[in-house]
Amino acid sequence: MGEFELIRRYFSAAACAQKTAGVAYGIGDDCALLEIPPGEQLAISTDTLVVGVHFPDGCDPFLLGQRALATTASDLAAMGARPIGFTLALTLPEADPAWLEAFARGLDHKARSCGLALIGGDTTRGPLCLTLTVMGRVPQGLALRRDGARPGDLLCVGGPLGDAAGALQLITGRRQAAAAIAEPLLARYWAPRPQLALGLELRGKASAALDVSDGLLADCGHIARASGVALYIEQERLPLSEALSALLHREEALACALSGGDDYVLAFTLPEAFLAELQAQWPIQVIGRVEVGEGVHLLDGSGREIEARRQGYQHFGGSSD
Amino acid sequence: MGEFELIRRYFSAAACAQKTAGVAYGIGDDCALLEIPPGEQLAISTDTLVVGVHFPDGCDPFLLGQRALATTASDLAAMGARPIGFTLALTLPEADPAWLEAFARGLDHKARSCGLALIGGDTTRGPLCLTLTVMGRVPQGLALRRDGARPGDLLCVGGPLGDAAGALQLITGRRQAAAAIAEPLLARYWAPRPQLALGLELRGKASAALDVSDGLLADCGHIARASGVALYIEQERLPLSEALSALLHREEALACALSGGDDYVLAFTLPEAFLAELQAQWPIQVIGRVEVGEGVHLLDGSGREIEARRQGYQHFGGSSD
Repeated sequence: MGEFELIRRYFSAAACAQKTAGVAYGIGDDCALLEIPPGEQLAISTDTLVVGVHFPDGCDPFLLGQRALATTASDLAAMGARPIGFTLALTLPEADPAWLEAFARGLDHKARSCGLALIGGDTTRGPLCLTLTVMGRVPQGLALRRDGARPGDLLCVGGPLGDAAGALQLITGRRQAAAAIAEPLLARYWAPRPQLALGLELRGKASAALDVSDGLLADCGHIARASGVALYIEQERLPLSEALSALLHREEALACALSGGDDYVLAFTLPEAFLAELQAQWPIQVIGRVEVGEGVHLLDGSGREIEARRQGYQHFGGSSD
Repeated sequence: MGEFELIRRYFSAAACAQKTAGVAYGIGDDCALLEIPPGEQLAISTDTLVVGVHFPDGCDPFLLGQRALATTASDLAAMGARPIGFTLALTLPEADPAWLEAFARGLDHKARSCGLALIGGDTTRGPLCLTLTVMGRVPQGLALRRDGARPGDLLCVGGPLGDAAGALQLITGRRQAAAAIAEPLLARYWAPRPQLALGLELRGKASAALDVSDGLLADCGHIARASGVALYIEQERLPLSEALSALLHREEALACALSGGDDYVLAFTLPEAFLAELQAQWPIQVIGRVEVGEGVHLLDGSGREIEARRQGYQHFGGSSD
């Protein structure tokens, strides 16, 4: 048996432990088999993480496993889908048992908390690269898409923004901070919590949704374009964590919140009628509104539009992009 | 817009052209959405191809696109699943338009012939690496698994074996041959035809099935192990193509048929009652039988077991492997 066969067996042990409802047959045949209840659709998304691009060379394998699954599972949250399972395509330069054990542990840890079973995959030799494909299910017509935002809706986010971008300044050594500041930020980067429960709650309420992965302005641009509307963001209402505010000056923290990626909180548009009910249960924050028009517009405290270029941001979302 | 955004748009054009039944929503949101009819299950499989491991550096991108999809779609054939769609995770060192155009054309060509729609993916920068995830559907209980072979069943294959291994000798320059010999062999390697229609036909008939990707002996070992039976292969009955027989001496051709991978024909076990009906329509070949016991056993023309080690093969399939 080759070393890569051993790896497969290692992961398949992890897979057996976390079978979820919906997995009819997992690892061990040409295909896995999933059950999708009548009236529901399968939601599926793929993400690739490459060493040196999406994570630093030499990074902790436990954290990598955890983060890889969390960032991919976030696409299910963004769609309002209930998790079923995932496949892992793992390309590795060598089969280092200590690395693999820690990576599989990180993956398994996050898989359990998300309710995702490992149902298949492929292990090959080559430069370190991961591709995860996550699958979930969502009742027909209730998936949270990007194209339903309507003028008059509120623009909301599911939690503080910019923490992951702040953490990256620590990881790359551009900043240093005491543990009380660094730890919560690093946790947001390495162990993002896909907002799966919030995604389920938003079904039938949010008119459009996605997860903030490329940065708030860029991602709001996706909603504006898909829905054919303008989004106005009030800069003063952006939720910033205490840790980020302690690490950075306000202007820098706002830049992280607006353009830093990797936060994996949900951004969504919501008819105002649903706001009170949701806010009673979830720490969601209104950050702006949907209007007739196009593009994403940033407003200062007095409601004046901040010229995007002056702020060093691209003006996202116009159809001419 | 970055070059990688352009790539995504290029592939999404290809995706729109080939929507198949079952794709409720393709590229353009956090997840794709698929419809699985009531009473059917989703079948899903992932394969990774790495440059220098699964295909030579500098190989023709049209052929690579074609081959990558065909080899992955073959897992749907092996399961008796009807194709729906696939995702593509493409990692590329650079966005070379000519390479991409040819690769996407090869992929699209095979996708159309398999009835698979491109429903999502990810494009990243890094060493050339492809991960494809294919999805299909199969009525509950009818998937062709590996664990149902019963003593008394026949062991069959869906076509000639060893051609891809013969082609590899040409590709790596170990052999040379006239076009009349080389072309059909190279076609088997670069443009394998997943036996999707045969897979559908075998539902409710074959007791176990898979596609020959690792080599006949190794793959039969998977069936023997999963089903808890012994498989006996009669070497004289192995189907060899004319081209392979012209390229290699018989002993070498048999070695390709037994241990060469990449053929992507189906191997399956079949109660004898179904044989005549199937053979009337499909060029399937009986190559052996299922018996009580374990492991894969190779028999010579007089029915004597060939000692595997002497032949240079691993003895596959025993539980101690």
